[in-house]
Amino acid sequence: MGYKQVAVLVAGSWGTALARVLADNGHTVKLWTRSANQAEEINGQRRNTKFLPEAELPEGIIATTDMKDAVSSAEAVLFVAPSSAMRDVARQAALYLHKDALIIHATKGFEPDSLKRMSTVLAEELGRSEHQIVVLSGPSHAEEVVIRQPTTVVVASQETACAEAAQDLFMNEEYFRVYTNPDFIGVETAGAIKNIIALGAGLTDGLGFGDNAKAALITRGLAEIARLGAAMGANPLTFAGLAGVGDLIATCTSKHSRNWRAGSMLAQGLPLEVVLQRMGMVVEGVRTTKSAHMLASRYGVEMPITNQLYAVLFDGRSPELAVGALMGRVKKNEIEEVADASRDKWLRGQPGV
Amino acid sequence: MGYKQVAVLVAGSWGTALARVLADNGHTVKLWTRSANQAEEINGQRRNTKFLPEAELPEGIIATTDMKDAVSSAEAVLFVAPSSAMRDVARQAALYLHKDALIIHATKGFEPDSLKRMSTVLAEELGRSEHQIVVLSGPSHAEEVVIRQPTTVVVASQETACAEAAQDLFMNEEYFRVYTNPDFIGVETAGAIKNIIALGAGLTDGLGFGDNAKAALITRGLAEIARLGAAMGANPLTFAGLAGVGDLIATCTSKHSRNWRAGSMLAQGLPLEVVLQRMGMVVEGVRTTKSAHMLASRYGVEMPITNQLYAVLFDGRSPELAVGALMGRVKKNEIEEVADASRDKWLRGQPGV
Repeated sequence: MGYKQVAVLVAGSWGTALARVLADNGHTVKLWTRSANQAEEINGQRRNTKFLPEAELPEGIIATTDMKDAVSSAEAVLFVAPSSAMRDVARQAALYLHKDALIIHATKGFEPDSLKRMSTVLAEELGRSEHQIVVLSGPSHAEEVVIRQPTTVVVASQETACAEAAQDLFMNEEYFRVYTNPDFIGVETAGAIKNIIALGAGLTDGLGFGDNAKAALITRGLAEIARLGAAMGANPLTFAGLAGVGDLIATCTSKHSRNWRAGSMLAQGLPLEVVLQRMGMVVEGVRTTKSAHMLASRYGVEMPITNQLYAVLFDGRSPELAVGALMGRVKKNEIEEVADASRDKWLRGQPGV
Repeated sequence: MGYKQVAVLVAGSWGTALARVLADNGHTVKLWTRSANQAEEINGQRRNTKFLPEAELPEGIIATTDMKDAVSSAEAVLFVAPSSAMRDVARQAALYLHKDALIIHATKGFEPDSLKRMSTVLAEELGRSEHQIVVLSGPSHAEEVVIRQPTTVVVASQETACAEAAQDLFMNEEYFRVYTNPDFIGVETAGAIKNIIALGAGLTDGLGFGDNAKAALITRGLAEIARLGAAMGANPLTFAGLAGVGDLIATCTSKHSRNWRAGSMLAQGLPLEVVLQRMGMVVEGVRTTKSAHMLASRYGVEMPITNQLYAVLFDGRSPELAVGALMGRVKKNEIEEVADASRDKWLRGQPGV
């Protein structure tokens, strides 16, 4: 495979880190941002101090604020906008996009209010079929990727050729391994919903609970997100893979996770507005808690962790009360809970597997 | 349910912590140990400094070196001997055991050489059916349980009445939640094999790899231990629960895990004998790596992480080489790997579920 022209939209931490992977692999990368200052800093000082202060960026990344310049000659476009901005970014990109360009996204969240998956938003704005869109996800802190720490991700698309084209773009021998998975709905929903559990893990850690409690919370959280994912059309087995349990572990147990950090600040009694202000970056888990709370009701799925977090974030419930309710939750037979997510869906067969 | 006479054999860290739970629940606990000094310390100073130096033990725990005294009037006996000592301890206990006593074990490992599960060893030595034996497992560092940090475990037995009797013994409102699961083979094998992955996680952390790499390793490890478990008769869904992914997370990401610590010392280049000497306690994962390596061959299951650890522990392979081999492992479609463990077994139906 030859080198390609790739556009990355936008220059947040994950977009910048993935742009580095692409540049390391020899591709020419246009990194689009709305901020002229940021573009100037990236092109002049090879830095993105707001999002990844410690990394020096390679010459192969060219930042631009001009969408036409970024997109019009791109053979592949990677969308990494915040979930709330995805539709707007896609709409702008659609004006210049080549009809054969490979579309990939790596955003973890649902569109606010509509609750649509990101690939649905992209399909609508770009006039594509969802099946041609590739979702990139997995346990991958940008802070580690940008300094070339070994990382393994999944690219998912119902069309194998699209997933494999994305695999070829990103895979390298040195530090970035890429697996394919046909279950794009599972990879997408797993990546979005796990941020809720990371908030919960930050909450229990912040309240001084130990590793036993956190492991139990993550385990229950995995069952909970798999239940919602299955209801939305995902293959439950995807939740046992890198985009599911892998990303959940990385997000719930790492100092790099901003969702975890937001949860631990909430545990200290800080109001949500103060936490978001101090973070200075998008905390997808906060929005996703609202989305998943609505999705759970739409699909009739029981999501006790999500519901408690929703109450803490938006209804003023104290973190102590919320975690106490979760710990005290009575369910005697654990297989019932896991099986809710897997058995029926699995036996009926899943799309794309 | 009334209070019971319970015997706990032996007074290691997990046995002592579980003895505290039983005593907190109002039961009379005889804690058996071979060491007269340890018994004296527990009864006199309410301490077990070798294994849990920071905890003060309640009056309800009475240590004894006399097996007859410990076992003959016990309505329930909890076996927590190291896997290599289980048969010998069971043989001694069998001399005095009441035929109706409830038998529970909480040991994570296989019998060396025979590779038998602990419930098989107990069944043979006590003249019981395996189906009446209860396995207790889950994410539960003894250091946290003994200071009453919230903890959730699973008790598994094919006979529901036995599992529920064990649940009644251990469950309390304050800090110890107990779920039942009929899949005792799954709970038992998951608990045993996960220690291998914890050694591997210690190795990657010790070599300076990041959280992305560790999350990928744990995810691959989960698929690997589920494959072996399924081949041994477990329900793969058990590996998605507390005894599987829950315990795996607790063991791979906590400072309390001795298997993780042993792995991180190996990464520093210390020889196995020195590591074991410095630990001063049984490191079940070392023995289990040998057992699982043989079991993988017996059952024809692919276990790349186990094989690399086996080579580090027993064949002098360098940790760098082993982890490098794991990171570079090529498998393009991740669903294949997870599905190996689940699909076929699940569709054929599992024993006891």
